[in-house]
Amino acid sequence: MASKAERPDATIGKARIEAFSDGVIAVAITLLALDLHVPDPAGTGSLAQHLGDQWPSYAAYVVSFLTIGIIWINHHAMLRRLVSVDHAIMVLNLVLLLAIGVLPFSTALMARYLQAAHGQNLAAVIYGGSFLAMSLVFFTMHRHLLIAKHHLLQDYLTPGVRRSVLRRNAFGLLPYAVATLGGILTPYLTLAICAALAVFYALPSTTSDRVSLD
Amino acid sequence: MASKAERPDATIGKARIEAFSDGVIAVAITLLALDLHVPDPAGTGSLAQHLGDQWPSYAAYVVSFLTIGIIWINHHAMLRRLVSVDHAIMVLNLVLLLAIGVLPFSTALMARYLQAAHGQNLAAVIYGGSFLAMSLVFFTMHRHLLIAKHHLLQDYLTPGVRRSVLRRNAFGLLPYAVATLGGILTPYLTLAICAALAVFYALPSTTSDRVSLD
Amino acid sequence: MASKAERPDATIGKARIEAFSDGVIAVAITLLALDLHVPDPAGTGSLAQHLGDQWPSYAAYVVSFLTIGIIWINHHAMLRRLVSVDHAIMVLNLVLLLAIGVLPFSTALMARYLQAAHGQNLAAVIYGGSFLAMSLVFFTMHRHLLIAKHHLLQDYLTPGVRRSVLRRNAFGLLPYAVATLGGILTPYLTLAICAALAVFYALPSTTSDRVSLD
Amino acid sequence: MASKAERPDATIGKARIEAFSDGVIAVAITLLALDLHVPDPAGTGSLAQHLGDQWPSYAAYVVSFLTIGIIWINHHAMLRRLVSVDHAIMVLNLVLLLAIGVLPFSTALMARYLQAAHGQNLAAVIYGGSFLAMSLVFFTMHRHLLIAKHHLLQDYLTPGVRRSVLRRNAFGLLPYAVATLGGILTPYLTLAICAALAVFYALPSTTSDRVSLD
Repeated sequence: MASKAERPDATIGKARIEAFSDGVIAVAITLLALDLHVPDPAGTGSLAQHLGDQWPSYAAYVVSFLTIGIIWINHHAMLRRLVSVDHAIMVLNLVLLLAIGVLPFSTALMARYLQAAHGQNLAAVIYGGSFLAMSLVFFTMHRHLLIAKHHLLQDYLTPGVRRSVLRRNAFGLLPYAVATLGGILTPYLTLAICAALAVFYALPSTTSDRVSLD
Repeated sequence: MASKAERPDATIGKARIEAFSDGVIAVAITLLALDLHVPDPAGTGSLAQHLGDQWPSYAAYVVSFLTIGIIWINHHAMLRRLVSVDHAIMVLNLVLLLAIGVLPFSTALMARYLQAAHGQNLAAVIYGGSFLAMSLVFFTMHRHLLIAKHHLLQDYLTPGVRRSVLRRNAFGLLPYAVATLGGILTPYLTLAICAALAVFYALPSTTSDRVSLD
Repeated sequence: MASKAERPDATIGKARIEAFSDGVIAVAITLLALDLHVPDPAGTGSLAQHLGDQWPSYAAYVVSFLTIGIIWINHHAMLRRLVSVDHAIMVLNLVLLLAIGVLPFSTALMARYLQAAHGQNLAAVIYGGSFLAMSLVFFTMHRHLLIAKHHLLQDYLTPGVRRSVLRRNAFGLLPYAVATLGGILTPYLTLAICAALAVFYALPSTTSDRVSLD
Repeated sequence: MASKAERPDATIGKARIEAFSDGVIAVAITLLALDLHVPDPAGTGSLAQHLGDQWPSYAAYVVSFLTIGIIWINHHAMLRRLVSVDHAIMVLNLVLLLAIGVLPFSTALMARYLQAAHGQNLAAVIYGGSFLAMSLVFFTMHRHLLIAKHHLLQDYLTPGVRRSVLRRNAFGLLPYAVATLGGILTPYLTLAICAALAVFYALPSTTSDRVSLD
């Protein structure tokens, strides 16, 4: 591996960081389907019953797929604000991809334990917590860009716009904190909040036609 | 995660939505091969016999691989009609990718149950239904682009061309509906119709040399 | 899904067919590693012995990785000869990707049966045959481009150059046919020929510095 | 497959080698998560205890994810030094990707054996050795570019700059050699050194703001 001084310290184009991030997120989102299991034809019970029993897997698949998809859309928007990237941004992006990479695991954990007799609350806290952690890394990276790296930003991002973008970002962490804590009561609350958030972010914003950030 | 107002509401370039879609479809199509199992060398019976017994897996692999490949070609054609994309298009695209992402699961289900003593009809209905669902999302997304987002389309797409494109699209749903219902009779009917459709779409159209959409 | 007339019949840019092919080949080549198994720590026997027993998996991994990598290099070279692509080329490319997509399966089959008491010859014939099939599809696609689609080719590809490229291509099929048939004698012959071919194609050609195709 | 003379011998653009490498590295880094296992809800013991017992898997996941990510950053930097690539560079790059492709296996081996009663030292030597092998291939490829292919390099890379880049590269191999040998003493030493290296390379260099390589 290259020694420390070998690193790409200068600001560079963002095409490859986009391509690599797209790749990691595309693989992670598609690996979610590996937790959908085909029941054994030789087993007892009807296929309909076996598939019906797996509904937590389907629910968790849809919620996690949409959430990772929305992360991708937001990641897309975040990088569009940049003209170029540096080493710190690439490392923060790597930590974000690490947090996204564990989501297939936390999703499978949630699906498998939602209806279990024990461990269901911990599984839900870990599921909500994995989304919260991912949001926190996203916020940290976004904050770093908007505060410390404004020389790499597109021109239209005035200090006022940057503050307002960050404030809305910080508020976006709250619902995932609630979803995480909600798992202590019941895992269904965590799943319901995460599902509602995915739908909320996917729906068209009423103000969206009037706002043009670029 | 970014708050709602943080979303990329403005129209944007389509390079990254193409890259992300290519990634998800490429992973989904390649994961199909994970359902091709190597027989245990320590088991009884010859390798030839074990591999021969797996023919439903090979058939389902080929049919699903070609079908997903043709979806990719059509997705490619759909996005070429666009100059840029907005939030609603990205969310519809995400739902389309979600529908594509479950195809390795429905393919494995079909392969495992084709010759089973029970559950084979339900498995076939789910297999045909997963292609129908994917086609429906594709149609919905395409309709949204051609009707509601004509300001984002390439210039050559006049209202007349758009109506004729959509009409042909709607007719394309019918065979998958038949394949889905056919599973009630026998799963072989579903697999045969899906195979015939994959070959039909792959073959060169006799009119294709005279039609130039771009 | 789009109806037949909906297909991208006009000639189009090749950026997305390259991106999709790169994605499928990258996933297939990386999935090869899924057949490298970690021995159970609770089992009997030393780790060194267990890993040593797996040498066919390592050998098959290296041979298949290099072979798929060389396919990618050749695919790269083939598409560079083109200015644009049409529907038939995209379908042929899809069949090529299908043939590449099964290589992780045939590689795992070869690795698991190389030292088995029965089935080892069939496994080797399938392994060699999967490379032969892939080469045949590559040759068919290349032939189609050079003979039927010369209006889509770069200008420097005169009829004489095209004939000589195809002749060399056809000769390239022979060693894989020998490797496939060699499996009838012993699977080690198949693996050895495939390994030798991977090394041969990877080595620098002595004529390479004098030949410039573009 | 194309015959030997069919290979892309001329120097060519580097867009597709970047896209393919990004794809392979993105898949390898995301497959690391497949070794995070969901405990069986029907088993004995609490979920917290089962997850706690898996800490070697989490530690190995984070260390390997960051290390592969840093390889990707360095790979990015290495290719930026090039104007175009030739056959030898593509083959060396393929060997580098092969070495990266086995890291999910060596990571799973390390995680599974860290606390085992036997085999833990060998597992650690293999884990450190897989990073060392990858670094050696990276160094070999980098050396080949800087020494033998200076006609393909960007203009700013004078002989003096090239020598200094290579010297720092060679020193970067040492810590991985130490990590590999350290596994003979205890696997924890290997993991600790690899973790420290990942953090070291991820941290901002104090000289980074003053050095601009491009």
